[in-house]
Amino acid sequence: MKLGRFTVVGPDGPIHRIGLFLPEQNRVIDLRRAEALRLQGRGATPEAALRYASGVFPESMSAAIALGDLFLESAHEAAAARGDDASVSLEGLKLAAACDPSIVRDGLTFVKHIRQFHERMNLTPAPALLQVPGYFKGTPWTVVGHDAEVPWPERAEKMDYELELGWVMGRRAHNISPENARECLFGVTIFNDFSARDLQANEFAIGMGPTKSKDFAYAIGPWITTVDEFDDLGAIRMSVRVNGETWGEGDSSELLWSIDELIAYVSLGDHIQPGDVIGSGTMGNGSALELGRSLAEGDVVELDVAGVGVLRNTIAKRTRGTWWPEPRKPFM
Amino acid sequence: MKLGRFTVVGPDGPIHRIGLFLPEQNRVIDLRRAEALRLQGRGATPEAALRYASGVFPESMSAAIALGDLFLESAHEAAAARGDDASVSLEGLKLAAACDPSIVRDGLTFVKHIRQFHERMNLTPAPALLQVPGYFKGTPWTVVGHDAEVPWPERAEKMDYELELGWVMGRRAHNISPENARECLFGVTIFNDFSARDLQANEFAIGMGPTKSKDFAYAIGPWITTVDEFDDLGAIRMSVRVNGETWGEGDSSELLWSIDELIAYVSLGDHIQPGDVIGSGTMGNGSALELGRSLAEGDVVELDVAGVGVLRNTIAKRTRGTWWPEPRKPFM
Repeated sequence: MKLGRFTVVGPDGPIHRIGLFLPEQNRVIDLRRAEALRLQGRGATPEAALRYASGVFPESMSAAIALGDLFLESAHEAAAARGDDASVSLEGLKLAAACDPSIVRDGLTFVKHIRQFHERMNLTPAPALLQVPGYFKGTPWTVVGHDAEVPWPERAEKMDYELELGWVMGRRAHNISPENARECLFGVTIFNDFSARDLQANEFAIGMGPTKSKDFAYAIGPWITTVDEFDDLGAIRMSVRVNGETWGEGDSSELLWSIDELIAYVSLGDHIQPGDVIGSGTMGNGSALELGRSLAEGDVVELDVAGVGVLRNTIAKRTRGTWWPEPRKPFM
Repeated sequence: MKLGRFTVVGPDGPIHRIGLFLPEQNRVIDLRRAEALRLQGRGATPEAALRYASGVFPESMSAAIALGDLFLESAHEAAAARGDDASVSLEGLKLAAACDPSIVRDGLTFVKHIRQFHERMNLTPAPALLQVPGYFKGTPWTVVGHDAEVPWPERAEKMDYELELGWVMGRRAHNISPENARECLFGVTIFNDFSARDLQANEFAIGMGPTKSKDFAYAIGPWITTVDEFDDLGAIRMSVRVNGETWGEGDSSELLWSIDELIAYVSLGDHIQPGDVIGSGTMGNGSALELGRSLAEGDVVELDVAGVGVLRNTIAKRTRGTWWPEPRKPFM
């Protein structure tokens, strides 16, 4: 099942609706509406039906996933009973970010990417990389969806994409082991960890993790494919196109840390929440940096993942004039 | 005004109440109750009064602060009108974290701490530290309050505290400049950024920011003092006691980056939310590391900040047995 969110305008402004996406039929089932119609057919008043349906299919994907089994069961039932009466065309539909993670976490697992990244940056991989799965944390407030324009961050010169899978979590998890990780996985989405490479190099030297080099945009979408639809999460074909030209392709194999190890490690000490997204890390050849290239204003970046779809974003024009700190003098 | 949260048990389990703390009178005004009583005195039914009061004084401090001017105005009015009829004793009261930030952000600003930290770690400060304000991001899911026990993270040996102020944000902020930062500041709380130094050294080498070395506990409390109660945010006396013995003291002066610069920088590209907490960074002598010491099981750590109060936490016993990743072999 493919689940995501689209935006409609209500009396108080734009709101998000959870949809069951049927891209091969070029339509989306508005699940709140389908569920309300289904309940009305079973004796509910329209008002009570809408109240209940709004609880099961709220604006937040995280809130829906947090309902556990009820969410997918209701989606199946609503779609089967009244999906045809609650469909909207995908044509011209404005998509929201497929989910709204409480915090962004992003791993570093593809061996080929780690090798090529270090070669390009002229760095030797830290031995620490072999000790524990590395990951960084990103703000949840710059998550954007399919077709969103990606702002050009202040003072950045070298703009880049990162071709990644997004592991969408289905359950709370704390101190779990890899054997229990898979049952916490809800689905797979596409994750573009846009990066300003020149800012990133400076922030790397500070050692507190990326801030301005990453926190301007995390694209998630166009929807989530539930995990049951994949035969093998380690053999998903992936590619990236810039302005229609293929810049990188490969698949989800050859991991330094398995998906289950990454999820379990994130859960240590910390608490994973339903709807959280953990980036897989960048696929080998999944960044322009590895090719010695970078993005320009107006570039259209498409991440194509088999079993999910295409996540497309456009790089905005630069803006200047935001305040920027003055460098300090050395004090030791 | 001192605002925080305490925990009571309702029919569905523990819930948080927002309180106006009067520590010198050893009591707390339950603001939801005071506001409901005030409205009843003005013709509201008890049910409608409670419904409205629950909206203004919800469980989440962030949600309350997000109401803007209404929150503090209502707190003043409710306390003045019916505070005496809605007071509970501070004695034995269970406090929750004073606020519930959407994400933790923590700066690095005190010159003395930066100098001493690098001396102890045998590191030369990166020139990048002088270019932009460094800060890291932490999970919001391990935020704890006054008197909470701090778990001992898996595989950690060198446990430490960090004596910091927490800047509690009152407004959304995006791409602001330092001149506009102060109007976004709601109040000051105490922030203990507990740290596992051995894990931190390993994570520093990975370069993606701290994860397991920090994400096990961020203590915030005991309450927030609104910013109007401070004459000078750069002259706040601070000290730390371990098991009653003073280990460090100083004040909030001598910053590499001003409070306003730190807030403005965090807002660049990213979006600050009401109720977010930005750690000031550790005060000089505000960590055991700087003294060549570390914490032991059962240690009681008290951070004492003039104008706020004392934030006390106990270090839990170690637990073992959680899964931990097996190191990988070098691949390049």
